[in-house]
Formats: sequence, C-alpha cells, structure tokens
Amino acid sequence: MSDPSYVPGLENVIASETAISYLDVDREEIVLRGYELIELAQQVAYVDVAELLLNGSLPDAGGRQELERKLADEYEMPQALYDMLSAMPEEVNRMDLLRTGISALAAFDKELEDHSTDANRRKAISLLAKIPQLVANGTRAASGQFVRVPRNDLSYAGNFLYMLTGTKPNALEERIFDQSLIVYSEHEMPNSTFAARVIASTMSDMYGALAGAVASLKGYLHGGANEAVMYMLLEAGTPDELERLMLSKLARKERIMGFGHRVYMRKPDPRAVLMKASLEKLAQARGRRDLYDKCIAGEAVMLKEKGLYPNLDYYAAPVYDLLRIPIPLFTPVFLAARTAGICAHVMEQHDHNRLFRPRVRYMGPRGLHP
Amino acid sequence: MSDPSYVPGLENVIASETAISYLDVDREEIVLRGYELIELAQQVAYVDVAELLLNGSLPDAGGRQELERKLADEYEMPQALYDMLSAMPEEVNRMDLLRTGISALAAFDKELEDHSTDANRRKAISLLAKIPQLVANGTRAASGQFVRVPRNDLSYAGNFLYMLTGTKPNALEERIFDQSLIVYSEHEMPNSTFAARVIASTMSDMYGALAGAVASLKGYLHGGANEAVMYMLLEAGTPDELERLMLSKLARKERIMGFGHRVYMRKPDPRAVLMKASLEKLAQARGRRDLYDKCIAGEAVMLKEKGLYPNLDYYAAPVYDLLRIPIPLFTPVFLAARTAGICAHVMEQHDHNRLFRPRVRYMGPRGLHP
Ligand SMILES: CC(C)(COP(=O)(O)OP(=O)(O)OC[C@H]1O[C@@H](n2cnc3c(N)ncnc32)[C@H](O)[C@@H]1OP(=O)(O)O)[C@@H](O)C(=O)NCCC(=O)NCCS
Ligand SMILES: CC(C)(COP(=O)(O)OP(=O)(O)OC[C@H]1O[C@@H](n2cnc3c(N)ncnc32)[C@H](O)[C@@H]1OP(=O)(O)O)[C@@H](O)C(=O)NCCC(=O)NCCS
Repeated sequence: MSDPSYVPGLENVIASETAISYLDVDREEIVLRGYELIELAQQVAYVDVAELLLNGSLPDAGGRQELERKLADEYEMPQALYDMLSAMPEEVNRMDLLRTGISALAAFDKELEDHSTDANRRKAISLLAKIPQLVANGTRAASGQFVRVPRNDLSYAGNFLYMLTGTKPNALEERIFDQSLIVYSEHEMPNSTFAARVIASTMSDMYGALAGAVASLKGYLHGGANEAVMYMLLEAGTPDELERLMLSKLARKERIMGFGHRVYMRKPDPRAVLMKASLEKLAQARGRRDLYDKCIAGEAVMLKEKGLYPNLDYYAAPVYDLLRIPIPLFTPVFLAARTAGICAHVMEQHDHNRLFRPRVRYMGPRGLHP
Repeated sequence: MSDPSYVPGLENVIASETAISYLDVDREEIVLRGYELIELAQQVAYVDVAELLLNGSLPDAGGRQELERKLADEYEMPQALYDMLSAMPEEVNRMDLLRTGISALAAFDKELEDHSTDANRRKAISLLAKIPQLVANGTRAASGQFVRVPRNDLSYAGNFLYMLTGTKPNALEERIFDQSLIVYSEHEMPNSTFAARVIASTMSDMYGALAGAVASLKGYLHGGANEAVMYMLLEAGTPDELERLMLSKLARKERIMGFGHRVYMRKPDPRAVLMKASLEKLAQARGRRDLYDKCIAGEAVMLKEKGLYPNLDYYAAPVYDLLRIPIPLFTPVFLAARTAGICAHVMEQHDHNRLFRPRVRYMGPRGLHP
C-alpha cells in the first residue's frame, strides 16, 4: 500500500484531475471552466452554461439559438419508452421512475457503444433534451395520463417549467427557474458526479453512468434533501413552529435537511444566497412573504444552534414550491439540471480514463475453514 | 486539503473499512469473512457463500435448505415487470436490460425506503432470487417469447443454469456452474462494488446501488471482459491463430481482454486457476479439448509478451460457452453471482455510513467573465 491512511467518505481525497469545475472555499467561489457560477447565473442562460460545460466555451447569441434548436430537435421520445413506464405502479418514487427511464433510453441510442468525444456530446444533447420530458411526463405515463407535448415556441427552461406545471410561466418565473437550473448544473465532485465517473471508468456508457447518478442523487444526504426540506417547511405553519420543530429534531440528534455541506461546512453556500434572493422576489410577487419569513427563521435557528449555513436545497425547495412544481419532482428537476455537469464529467473521464479501483482496510476475521 | 497527492483511479487508496472480504496479495489469498474463497468454492455451495456474505456465517445443512426454500419463495416476478421489458427493442444490450429491470423492481418493494439491516437482508434475498430470472427471462421478454418458469425441484444454481439454457444440467455442469458463481460472488472493492457503496452512502436504496453496479460491470475494463474474451476465442480457430491475433493486437497497443488486474497484476489470479481446472474437466467431458488448448496457448503468449496472467474472466468465458450460456448473458451472469457481495457491501455501508464526497485537482482556467 502506498498510503495506508484511511479517510471515511474520502473527505479531501483528490479523486480526479478536472478542467470542469472547482469549489474554491478560500475565495468563496464556485468555478466553472474559469467562470464564476454566480456570475453566470446572473448573466447568461442555462443552455449557455450547458454549452460551456460540454464544449468548453460560452456560445454567442447565434450559438445559443443553434443549441436551443438542436435541443428542440431532440425532444421527441420513443413511444416505447412511455409504454414501458406506463407498466410501472402509479405510486413509484419519481427518482426510481427517472432512473428506469434513463436506463431504458440507452436501448434507443444507435451510437450507444461509441465513447468518442463527439458521440458522447451528441448523447449529452439528446439527454439534455429528453430528461426534462422524462421528469415531467414520467409521472403522467405511470398514472395512465396522456403525455404533454413539448412546446418549441418556448425557451428550453420555459418549456421545462411549462411541462412541469401545464402553464406557460411568466418572465420572472422563467428567469428564476432558469437560474435555479444554472446553480444546480455543476458542483465539482459531489457524490452523484463521482458515482458517474466511477462507472464511466470501466468504459461503460453515458446512460449507465447517469442512471448511477440518479440513484445517488435520490438519497436524502444528497439531492433528496430538497424534497425533505419542503415537507419540513409544510409541517411547520409559522416561523415559531419551524423553530420548535428544528429544536426538537436537534434534541433527538436528527440532521436537519438543507443544512451543512462537506466542502463549505462553516461558510455560506453562494448558491443558497442567490436562491434566497430569488425566493424573496417570488414570495413578494405571489404575496407569500410568510414562506420567506419561515425560511429566514429556520436559517437563524441553525446558525445559532449548530453554526451551520443553509445549502442550495434549503432555498431551492420553497422556490420550486412557489413555481408550482410538485414536491416529488424537486429531486428529479435537480437531476435534470445536473445532467449537463455529469455528462461533461463522463466525457472527461472517457477522454482521460483510468479505472477507479481502490482498496479496503480489512476488519474481519482470518484463518477460518469450512 | 489534508492530502494533496493524487493517485489516478484511486490505486491503493483505502476507500472503506470492511469485514466482508480482502485480497491478500502477499499470501495469494482471497479472504471472505475469514474463509479462503478457493476453499469455499471447493467445499460449499453458492447459497452457503451468499448466506456467509449477507449474514456473517456459513449455514449448516438445515440452514442451507431453509435459504434454498426462502429463495424459491421469492422467485415470483411482478408480471408488470415483464410487460415493461417487452416494450424494449429486441436487440437491447443484455446489461442495459438487466439494469433497467433491477431499477424497475424497486417500484414493487414495499420496504424500499427501509435501510435497516433486516429490511436490507430481505431485499438482498429477494434480489438473489429474482436476478437470475431477469437475466434468463429478460431476453425472452424483450423478444416477445414466453418467459420460462423457474423449477423449485432444482437447486438454486441448477435452476439458474436450467433457466439460462432450457435444459436440466447434469451433475458436473451444475457443480462447475455453482463454483463459477462462488468465485464471482465477491472480490473486495472492484469498481462495481465501489460504485454501489458510493451510491448507498447518500442513503439511497439497494436497487439503485445495484443498478449502478450493473452499469459499472458492463464496461469492458470490468465485467464486460468475459464476453470480449469469448468473441476473441471464437475469432481465432486454432491456438496458432489466437497467438497471431494476440500479437497483432499487442503490436497495435490494444489491451487483451481477460488479462491483468489492478491488484494482482503480476501474480496469477487464484480464481482463474480454479476455472482453468474446471474448463479442462468440462472440455474433456464434451470432447472439446481444442478449446482448452487454445486458451492455454493464449495464456502462454501473454505471459511471454507482457508478463501478464489471465484473470477470472479469461477462463470463465469458455466455461460458460461449454455450459451453453449465450455469450450476451456472460456479464449478466457475473452480475447475478456478484449480487451477494454487492448487497453485503450496501448493507455494511448503510450500517456504518459516511457520505463519499472526494475533491478534485482543478486544471482549468480561472478569472473569466461572461
Ligand atoms: C451534507 C452532509 C451530508 C455533509 O456531511 P459530512 O461532510 O459527511 O459531515 P458529517 O456527517 O461528518 O457531519 C459533521 C458534523 O456536523 C453535523 N451536521 C452536519 N450536517 C448537519 C445537519 N444538516 N443537521 C444537523 N447536524 C449536522 C453532524 O451531525 C456532525 O456533528 P458531530 O461531529 O457532532 O457528529 C451533511 O451536512 C448533511 O447530512 N446535511 C443534511 C442533508 C443535506 O442537506 N444534503 C444536501 C447537501 S447539498
Ligand atoms: C484490469 C485492468 C483494467 C487493470 O488496469 P490498471 O490497474 O488500471 O492498469 P493500467 O491500465 O495502468 O495498465 C498497466 C500496464 O499494463 C498494461 N496492461 C494491463 N492490462 C493489459 C492487458 N489486458 N493487455 C495488454 N496490456 C495490459 C497496460 O497497457 C499498461 O502498460 P504501460 O504501463 O506500458 O502503459 C487491465 O489489466 C485491463 O484492461 N485488462 C483487460 C480487461 C479485463 O480483462 N478486465 C477484467 C478484469 S477482472
């Protein structure tokens, strides 16, 4: 063994070299291919960030239009896929439905086993187009409803939100949703991205890597947290009730969903700060100041009691609720947004591959015989 | 960063503490909960090893009977699952089919979100019962054939091989197949097991972790190698032709499938040694000495040219071919056998969890603005 030390959860262990993104905790910057994530969220659209992640540079206005058109061309889903999903129990967990749908999509890709940069990029575009529909229509297919037809007259983000809610969003809603997709798009090496890279390193395909990422993101220590946050916010009617709920959870040594982060555990998550501002605007527009106040109260409790800051999921949850997205689709939407980042990582892994194969510290018995 | 060093592929990095298994390269032993894998393969049955992995100790004769009965009780598959798979394109890759089937099975588990040791063990038993059927019947469902009904009068391994081939195996065939399942059952921290543990560490469920493992195992640097080996053996008609084929691949700097291993790169793989002996017996019984001779010739080429030894996949491939298992099911069978090990790892992860979340070394630009 070159290094016999063991760090649970690979905390601070370098798993990959990457040119995709980096959490610079000292400077409190999330770097995406040289740009700052928050600046991107303020100034460009999600499709620009997707292009940046997959291609390495931001598109100009023409490039953005071309990408929007390419995506719309790829909206069409195999009917067989919806037929499959309609055989699933209606109450299936929406992340399980999504994982199954992405896994099945592999069967319809003629370039499936081509892992070249170009073929992988085409796969990524197709997935970016189709995953929002799987997220929105999967539920409809599983419960025997007609699927909703995507609208080519809307932007990528506008169409996604329309598909989720059945209503064309107004400009503020679309902008806030688009920003949420950007801040969810990529975040260095979280568990789901890591799972995807580990899988891709056997030279397995992008669909499989993404299916693994869906499985990972479902867990409540990761993406599943945004749904858990919303159920907590609904359980407590007022700021006071939320405070009492949180204190009683903490007294029972339970974790509070939406707080803490492995990398910036004792610093604010810049993405949460942005989403908090969006929540304030949206709450204002909707006359739902009460929801905003409740979240503020929860934030204060955790800072006082545990010195922990809210993460992105804490503020994305109430934003998605005000955008009328069904709660069981919060984590699937997170996955849809993260598709750009994960596909970029799979491409980078395939382009500079070495198989992930670590070792263990054995703690069991020896010398037994049957 | 506590440790700024970077090892591609996490080579020799300790990812977990485990009491499940360990590759002791110095002593050339594969340890499974204190027992030596090869001794187990020679003396007990696969179901005993599954019990050992999941429960920590080998069953007595009564315990083995009880487990066989429990497994048979869990054979029954949801009809909806076969309905789903029948919507998939007939030519779908069998690992993609299996990944989709396992992912969908989650929807039928009433205890899905219970990650306690007991509930996880029940899930593992159910998966051990159902995965062989998914492997064998998935192809039949996807191509619109009737599914085969499992036979409760056969042993677990006997039924699995019957389901794969449609013929009740003789004693030698059943024994050799059972041994192959044992040697495939568990192997410390290969990529697929690692992927499953990474996923489980978000407190996601066992089905998702296993779906990720299927995705990983599909890659040709990992489980996919057994199918690739068989195609190579079929491409070369004689030992001489195999030698020429290998030399030309090596001259083109291609990897030869079925050789090399991250952990025992310069030592024989004890599992391959066992499978080689099985191949010799089976080839003898079948009058297929030619196949055995071809494999021996290939082994000699690689030792001479690269100093590399065959791994398990190199000898499992011709054994499975002589057992009349269709080549596209070689890797799915590997996954079925590895189910016991992977489920044991998911249980251990859930029981002693910390989220996997490593870091990166950032190699991209900085300071760009949109
Ligand atoms: C994200 C998270 C998994 C990071 O975990 P980690 O780096 O493995 O941190 P640890 O589990 O080692 O926790 C360190 C300490 O902080 C505490 N802690 C961390 N997050 C906490 C939370 N959300 N609520 C209460 N306590 C928390 C732990 O209990 C632990 O305290 P201890 O040392 O007294 O036992 C963790 O913060 C968490 O569970 N958060 C809630 C789930 C969530 O919001 N996930 C989305 C992340 S984007
Ligand atoms: C299993 C495997 C992925 C381990 O890889 P690894 O630990 O990452 O090893 P590396 O890729 O760093 O290879 C080390 C060296 O051995 C060579 N090598 C390893 N396996 C080789 C093979 N099967 N054929 C030819 N060369 C091989 C590599 O080319 C490399 O040579 P170099 O240093 O001159 O470039 C690798 O041996 C392999 O690809 N084997 C073939 C696939 C296979 O059988 N997989 C099933 C494993 S159970």
